[in-house]
Amino acid sequence: MRIGIDLGGTNIAAGLVDENMNILCKGSVPTLAERPFEDIVKDMGMLVLDLCKKMEVEPFGLTSVGIGAPGTPAKEKGEILFSNNLNWHNAPLVKELQKYVPVPVKLDNDANAAALGEVLAGAARGSDSCILVTLGTGVGGGIILDGKVYDGINHAGAEVGHTVLVSGGEPCSCGRRGCWESYASATALIRMGHAACAAHPDSHLAEVKKENGKLNGYLIFKASEEGCEAAKQVIDQYLFYVAEGITNLVNIFQPASVVIGGGICAQGERILGPIRSHVTGNVFCKQVSLPEIRCAELGNDAGIIGAAFL
Amino acid sequence: MRIGIDLGGTNIAAGLVDENMNILCKGSVPTLAERPFEDIVKDMGMLVLDLCKKMEVEPFGLTSVGIGAPGTPAKEKGEILFSNNLNWHNAPLVKELQKYVPVPVKLDNDANAAALGEVLAGAARGSDSCILVTLGTGVGGGIILDGKVYDGINHAGAEVGHTVLVSGGEPCSCGRRGCWESYASATALIRMGHAACAAHPDSHLAEVKKENGKLNGYLIFKASEEGCEAAKQVIDQYLFYVAEGITNLVNIFQPASVVIGGGICAQGERILGPIRSHVTGNVFCKQVSLPEIRCAELGNDAGIIGAAFL
Repeated sequence: MRIGIDLGGTNIAAGLVDENMNILCKGSVPTLAERPFEDIVKDMGMLVLDLCKKMEVEPFGLTSVGIGAPGTPAKEKGEILFSNNLNWHNAPLVKELQKYVPVPVKLDNDANAAALGEVLAGAARGSDSCILVTLGTGVGGGIILDGKVYDGINHAGAEVGHTVLVSGGEPCSCGRRGCWESYASATALIRMGHAACAAHPDSHLAEVKKENGKLNGYLIFKASEEGCEAAKQVIDQYLFYVAEGITNLVNIFQPASVVIGGGICAQGERILGPIRSHVTGNVFCKQVSLPEIRCAELGNDAGIIGAAFL
Repeated sequence: MRIGIDLGGTNIAAGLVDENMNILCKGSVPTLAERPFEDIVKDMGMLVLDLCKKMEVEPFGLTSVGIGAPGTPAKEKGEILFSNNLNWHNAPLVKELQKYVPVPVKLDNDANAAALGEVLAGAARGSDSCILVTLGTGVGGGIILDGKVYDGINHAGAEVGHTVLVSGGEPCSCGRRGCWESYASATALIRMGHAACAAHPDSHLAEVKKENGKLNGYLIFKASEEGCEAAKQVIDQYLFYVAEGITNLVNIFQPASVVIGGGICAQGERILGPIRSHVTGNVFCKQVSLPEIRCAELGNDAGIIGAAFL
């Protein structure tokens, strides 16, 4: 029995996970990220002890507790070197949680934990190697090679969203221009949607925007399905960029699986079809069998399961 | 004692290598790539036996013979699945060479072998992880992780040159547009040089082109050093693209070393300075120590040494 914690900017979610990667019990509390570090970690500790109590598991009997946290971990030290979301610098997360938890505490980046979760129990089950790309506010990445998280000498790798695809293009939060994140994130899709509304003020998409007072990825996909040509062009353009970045990753890694995470997963084959077709047609070596490309299956549970098995 | 063979489109080079990664004796013969496969492999076999004879080494006493070959290897089968340069399809290279060589024959892609050579005995000595990018006619890649060649489930990975950097840009030999190869290869540098001559027909660079009847990378660097503003702009632009691609690779891999190979290595600090500075300023995580960025040290010997230790 293990516990995995998915520490997010909004919520702390944790789950008791058995050795078959089933989540037996889950709980969550708000992060309230502006609180002192110690208070947040105390709540993480309480969440662990609550889960144990609820499921009548002796905390000493846990194999381990793992944390998937946003930011760059200094794993050897058990610290978060830097987290934008939580505004933490050199935060001794493992040491602090160890005050409440009597078993080994392990730490990794949240995207890496989610990738491991999908490999262990989700869309990439049975894959020895997998790249998880999460298309959300930004584009996150998790790399699993040989069944283990790969993140480079300083644990700062796997930033697949921060690879320039459109040289000199849109400014990215990282300071560069034209990063994949600026073209393949949900944020980018919405930006493209707004641009289409401005260019086609009489389109159905522009009406949808007016009715809803805003646009989101779901509304743009829906408008496209309802026959709106402007929305369809946005989706085509967006999926082109998503697929170009995935083709790049396939040419580099040729992993057993590529898993796409984020809210866009709800679109299933609507996105997988065009992406698979683009990758097949554009990959460098066309004489080999290609990676499986799938949508993530576990949603937020991926991070919990992955963290439990760090 | 081992023998490494670097099979190129023009020459077959081989070397007898000791366990300290010193090349004790080298030899080479022309590939004459249009010959039948069997004839080429026979010459490889003769080269191995010649080296043994010359150095008074019993062929049976070799630990192994390794081949770095262009194209995509099917390592498990000991075949070259596909090689553009040699026009080979499913060529049973290991089996054929085994007719002449009485010890185990190993096979990998030439870029992978060169990367392994630089890690074992060259610019990345002591690095556990290394990305080798060779800026030549194209842009080749070799990835070493955990001291071993990484090339994905089908050995077709590590094609770092075929990652789009300039979406919709120059057509690439692989069929896509805007691949890094089309902006960071020596071929791309020369293309940029020609464009600069056309745009600035009165420049020193244009004179150099006229005098020499052509342009090459060396001439463009030389014209820049001689104060030609047009040539300097070409070099700046070219190094920007090289550095953008390397920054992408650092954000993905954070390897211990990045090694730059190809004729451009002769420029040493002239290229390393701007590249290092660009990577440092543009990498995603600025709170960590970054990979060493160096020029390759072993030249063509890298492929021989790496092949010997496959």
